[in-house]
Amino acid sequence: MRSGRSSKGATCIGILGGGQLARMSAMAAYRLGVSVAILDEEPSSPAGQLTRHEFVGRVDDHRLLKTFAGSCDVATLENEFIDHHHLEYLERLGTIVRPASATIAIIQDKLLQKIALRKKHIPVAEFVGVQGVTDFDEIVSVIGLPFMMKSRKMGYDGYGNALINRRSQFVNAVQRLSRRHSHLMAERLIDFRMELAVMVARTRKETVVYPVVRTIQKNHICELVIAPANISRKIERLAKEIAVEAVNAVAGIGLFGIEMFLTKNDDILVNEMAPRPHNSGHYTIDACVTSQFENHIRSVMNLPLGSSAMVQPHAVMVNLLGKRNGSPSLRSYGRSLRDNDVHLHVYGKHSSRAGRKMGHITFVGTDAASLLKRAKRITTLNLI
Amino acid sequence: MRSGRSSKGATCIGILGGGQLARMSAMAAYRLGVSVAILDEEPSSPAGQLTRHEFVGRVDDHRLLKTFAGSCDVATLENEFIDHHHLEYLERLGTIVRPASATIAIIQDKLLQKIALRKKHIPVAEFVGVQGVTDFDEIVSVIGLPFMMKSRKMGYDGYGNALINRRSQFVNAVQRLSRRHSHLMAERLIDFRMELAVMVARTRKETVVYPVVRTIQKNHICELVIAPANISRKIERLAKEIAVEAVNAVAGIGLFGIEMFLTKNDDILVNEMAPRPHNSGHYTIDACVTSQFENHIRSVMNLPLGSSAMVQPHAVMVNLLGKRNGSPSLRSYGRSLRDNDVHLHVYGKHSSRAGRKMGHITFVGTDAASLLKRAKRITTLNLI
Repeated sequence: MRSGRSSKGATCIGILGGGQLARMSAMAAYRLGVSVAILDEEPSSPAGQLTRHEFVGRVDDHRLLKTFAGSCDVATLENEFIDHHHLEYLERLGTIVRPASATIAIIQDKLLQKIALRKKHIPVAEFVGVQGVTDFDEIVSVIGLPFMMKSRKMGYDGYGNALINRRSQFVNAVQRLSRRHSHLMAERLIDFRMELAVMVARTRKETVVYPVVRTIQKNHICELVIAPANISRKIERLAKEIAVEAVNAVAGIGLFGIEMFLTKNDDILVNEMAPRPHNSGHYTIDACVTSQFENHIRSVMNLPLGSSAMVQPHAVMVNLLGKRNGSPSLRSYGRSLRDNDVHLHVYGKHSSRAGRKMGHITFVGTDAASLLKRAKRITTLNLI
Repeated sequence: MRSGRSSKGATCIGILGGGQLARMSAMAAYRLGVSVAILDEEPSSPAGQLTRHEFVGRVDDHRLLKTFAGSCDVATLENEFIDHHHLEYLERLGTIVRPASATIAIIQDKLLQKIALRKKHIPVAEFVGVQGVTDFDEIVSVIGLPFMMKSRKMGYDGYGNALINRRSQFVNAVQRLSRRHSHLMAERLIDFRMELAVMVARTRKETVVYPVVRTIQKNHICELVIAPANISRKIERLAKEIAVEAVNAVAGIGLFGIEMFLTKNDDILVNEMAPRPHNSGHYTIDACVTSQFENHIRSVMNLPLGSSAMVQPHAVMVNLLGKRNGSPSLRSYGRSLRDNDVHLHVYGKHSSRAGRKMGHITFVGTDAASLLKRAKRITTLNLI
């Protein structure tokens, strides 16, 4: 393993995690002439394939983490599941970590995240911490029924969540979710009109806000992103303001995705924050002047940020979700290229399974309705 | 070295050469989930940095070439200087090479290239082969004075060319250029109004033609590209027709750059063809629906080609040419990012020297004049 820092002076960014988010960030780094080190548990991960500075192992292996740190000038991450203590270890070694461990510590615990947001008067659904199976009546008295139970850590794509209608479900959920992570919280169930998301890139000098997009989930997994969301100017402005405030609330430096609910009363509530590139921002590669991935790299490297303006009025992104177990083939994806203006992205995963994010396609143009129609057709193609 | 072909079935494209063209093609391959093998004489070349399938050595080392071939499903190249015999060797091993060795054999010899074009009645400057120092009178009788002397092979950025005004210059040039490559040719000197270029991607089923651009050279090195060129519809149509005919004339499958002169009489003459991505097409990454690099990969993989339409009316690309010997730094390039809509590309070369292509910047927008002004300002920044 050659050291990035020592290899003839090229600046190197280390990314903890080697999935598709790291892969697309790595490509943005390479565009800027920045080299990349990847640490992932699996060899030949989507991002690990793109570098010779690949470290295979777990982040709790501090010997490995130290070697990794020695190879890069600055470190970032592609998911919020890395225990902040490991990031603190990197910081103690003298490695700049962006977002900082203190920010990750707040975001990776959904209860601490919500407390931080509420403290800054940022609208969120009512919530309470859950200590155990005896809490049911107290929860109901504060946030009502039905409510959502959530693992405070390690939840994603609906894993770690449970909808609670009655006491028996609560008791089961406490037992089941505690296996995932021992700490739980409960949130009021929001009857939303649509789900929105905003990407924010922030350095000490600048804040760049991307368009407000609408996300459409299927089985708790993001399937479609419509950019920009078809909402009023007023709601758009409010969503952007709240997104920036949310990043400020966690002293965030780097790139952040803020998921929100637009309620039936046109209120906006922050649902969750992600301290990293976000699925709702993939459209920016093909539809914006500067992609979320490039602004991820620029914010982490403390470079000037790029414009988030769209180059065409509309874009729709559709995730290519695995349909079954198997090996994906280029020929299969190639079928999506029959229209000559699709932007196909394939993540290089070695195997597919139902619901796995294997790639995405972005449609960019002037007619929102036709883009959406074409995107929905892709979901029927049964590519993988 | 892991084998691309054997590594869990991912499709792998092998690129002969590891410079910036291979680097940007590699990124386009990764976008499509295609893995990449690079063969270059230097370790840690701009493209070699992006893969673990890096082969270091010369193409005339057929043992190495065989290992390289074993790692990829299809091979391509980033320059026309690879002797076609080595490509034929790859083809004999059963590797698909695109463009094929037969096409490269014609293009890499400027005399054969011009003969092939003339045979198909494609307009070119009058030319003759040069056998030796005694040919002067015969050359002058056919193409007049002054004329251009060219090495038939291995010329680029003005290296291998000489302007001849009189007999003594001719004698010197024959001796000097013969050291570069023993075979020479002479061409009528064209008093052109501007230089144009067109990229063409071609598979057996499809041909995609990019906008006609104007290229501006300084000291024989491309400095600026203006897309599209400010020419009449009629000339634009003619240039595109000629570009496609030129690719057909060499039975070209793959991506081709066709350089042309627009004469003072509004005639178009083909100057040179390149069987690969071309500096004049770098703007397509940020300004077109499908970049030249993605269509390079798609044509080589025999996938459907993508649209060459521009996403905004105008683009100007400026090469970042080295100003002196030294190590480039990201901080230096970062100065170009003060405007938030520049598209910066840095090639990851470990050292700079005067005139070396270290990166490029693309400006995309609606006002051609202001884009050009901004691009010219970049050349004064003295970044590297």
